[in-house]
Amino acid sequence: MEQNTPRPIRCKAAVCKAPGQTLVIEEVEVAPPRAHEVRIKILCTSLCHTDLTFWQMKVTAGDTVVPVFLAQCGDCADCLSHRSNICSKLPPSFSAGLPRDGTTRFSLAATGQPVYMFLTISSFAEYTVVDVAHVVKVAAALPLEKACLLSCGVSTGVGAAWKVAAVEAGSTVAVFGLGTVGLAVAQGAKMCGAKRIIVIDLNPDKLDIGKKLGVTDFLNPNDIEEKPVSEVIKEMTGGGADYCFECVGSAPVMEEAFKSSRTGWGKTVILGSDGSAKPLSISSSDIKRGRSVHGALLGGIKPKDDIPVLVQKYLDKELQLDEFVTHEVGFDEINGAFDLLQQGKSLRCIIWMDGAKERTISA
Amino acid sequence: MEQNTPRPIRCKAAVCKAPGQTLVIEEVEVAPPRAHEVRIKILCTSLCHTDLTFWQMKVTAGDTVVPVFLAQCGDCADCLSHRSNICSKLPPSFSAGLPRDGTTRFSLAATGQPVYMFLTISSFAEYTVVDVAHVVKVAAALPLEKACLLSCGVSTGVGAAWKVAAVEAGSTVAVFGLGTVGLAVAQGAKMCGAKRIIVIDLNPDKLDIGKKLGVTDFLNPNDIEEKPVSEVIKEMTGGGADYCFECVGSAPVMEEAFKSSRTGWGKTVILGSDGSAKPLSISSSDIKRGRSVHGALLGGIKPKDDIPVLVQKYLDKELQLDEFVTHEVGFDEINGAFDLLQQGKSLRCIIWMDGAKERTISA
Ligand SMILES: [Zn+2]
Ligand SMILES: [Zn+2]
Ligand SMILES: [Zn+2]
Ligand SMILES: [Zn+2]
Repeated sequence: MEQNTPRPIRCKAAVCKAPGQTLVIEEVEVAPPRAHEVRIKILCTSLCHTDLTFWQMKVTAGDTVVPVFLAQCGDCADCLSHRSNICSKLPPSFSAGLPRDGTTRFSLAATGQPVYMFLTISSFAEYTVVDVAHVVKVAAALPLEKACLLSCGVSTGVGAAWKVAAVEAGSTVAVFGLGTVGLAVAQGAKMCGAKRIIVIDLNPDKLDIGKKLGVTDFLNPNDIEEKPVSEVIKEMTGGGADYCFECVGSAPVMEEAFKSSRTGWGKTVILGSDGSAKPLSISSSDIKRGRSVHGALLGGIKPKDDIPVLVQKYLDKELQLDEFVTHEVGFDEINGAFDLLQQGKSLRCIIWMDGAKERTISA
Repeated sequence: MEQNTPRPIRCKAAVCKAPGQTLVIEEVEVAPPRAHEVRIKILCTSLCHTDLTFWQMKVTAGDTVVPVFLAQCGDCADCLSHRSNICSKLPPSFSAGLPRDGTTRFSLAATGQPVYMFLTISSFAEYTVVDVAHVVKVAAALPLEKACLLSCGVSTGVGAAWKVAAVEAGSTVAVFGLGTVGLAVAQGAKMCGAKRIIVIDLNPDKLDIGKKLGVTDFLNPNDIEEKPVSEVIKEMTGGGADYCFECVGSAPVMEEAFKSSRTGWGKTVILGSDGSAKPLSISSSDIKRGRSVHGALLGGIKPKDDIPVLVQKYLDKELQLDEFVTHEVGFDEINGAFDLLQQGKSLRCIIWMDGAKERTISA
């Protein structure tokens, strides 16, 4: 993070010229930060299915920071309430990627053509300018590649178990989806003291890592004959899991997760988004038996409040993060990182901007 | 409530011989209570759309009790948890009406033909035999006609606001349905300190009573042109109500209630049951903005724990109940009470077994 630097910086950035096209590393000009903004030197980044990276209010030059796609302005009704993590002054937008003043800080060095950011916090460049509401300061003792995990998928899963479901010690958990988010739910549930963590997926490839992160049972729907997954989970748990999490993004899976939840207090947490926008269909007589369905962005994590807590839990060895990093590449291999993710081969691939694992982030 | 009475009792009961048929008051024989059961002399009763009445563990002869359709056995996982009000040893059944041993205590005096109870706790007789798990002892200071309100609809509404939604002081509430349950939600929300209570109904007939019970705004969907109710509620509340309650029993109304809830922390509570079993349809991207949907029976009220608390709140004038009693009739007018309810003319009609308002309930 830098301060009082009035001049533009020229550096490399991975530019996407059209949807689905290979990213091109080009020289860009990064304008100085304006009001509410900070310019950040990116040392490493990663990507996930939503695709992004890092964020606290008092940020000074030399601080290690993580930009996060959810803002925390600190003074709207939502930021002031413990119940919400969705800032109403700077609400999340999944289409545009422009700062408060509607302009971009990026342009192509060669032509001056403006370049736009994904979710207003792109980290696919050596330098980026981000609204300070989107920046979380983290402890300098945290390795950088662990910090960047906390900006999205891992926080989403851990937060869903910790903040949204508030998993009680000794309880049973069913997680639909054995990817980064699902495994982070398993780890969050383990952190909360869950005694049984059942993961459901058609692909058992990540099960070995899953077991290290807290998974106690694995269920492959292809191996089950003539009964729905929810019936098997009810048999395994004596009536249904206390907490069910959907991390796939499929309405039928969300419905099966809901049906797997126990009467009396079963909570289902929706983390995936159905790509076809198919709605989730729930029987009112089923939900009336004491069940509930919850949805959250970033697993209910309030970035500036909760990410530092997760950092401390990692440093205190109460939260495992190391297992999520399956690959590390240089900036020029960013398209290979996209391929690994698309093929389901990686959990998180760390992209080092200069190949070296430096600590300080400053301009 | 009686004890150590080994002989059968002959008394009058309102017998339903076929679905939808007028009830016939006939002499029945009521067998003595068996293990776990108590025989209760009914002094007054009422009916609601689910249709029923009254219930604590240490019940002795002469106690005032209310039988309730939800049991609380006191030692299953659900009864031992603060999170559930659905006893797993004696789970609610909306079809059969038989005690634990599968036999009935009622028979027609004339023919000996067995008579069955609705929900195992029928009060449409001068005497009834009920499992002690279904009985709540209430303070003798509570007027009987107020006690019988707490056995079903009024507890459902008050509990939904108090226990399920846990309405915070100063918040905004939208209630869909201006019947007994909806008005009880309004009263429960007022008890919790809600500052704005908007009720939505096509029929404004109960609005005067509603205002006495806490309703601050009324919305008739017929009066709104060209926009959905949820849009009007969003405008009235600056983004959506903090808590929304569906008390109608219609999937489209449930969906509109959900859409009326605020992002960040909006809770929707489903209290009605869609008669056509049409499922509730929810957009996963909408619920993911920090919203949740909850379902409950009896408004999350744990009968033996929570009904005595409501009784005390009534006696302390923190909870209004008087306004719910719109009619009082004698036992021989029970079919008229059904008509009043069916025509939407009554909230609660108290049925006095002997016309007199006696206090003691004992054999
Ligand atoms: Zn992501
Ligand atoms: Zn804010
Ligand atoms: Zn009822
Ligand atoms: Zn029980």
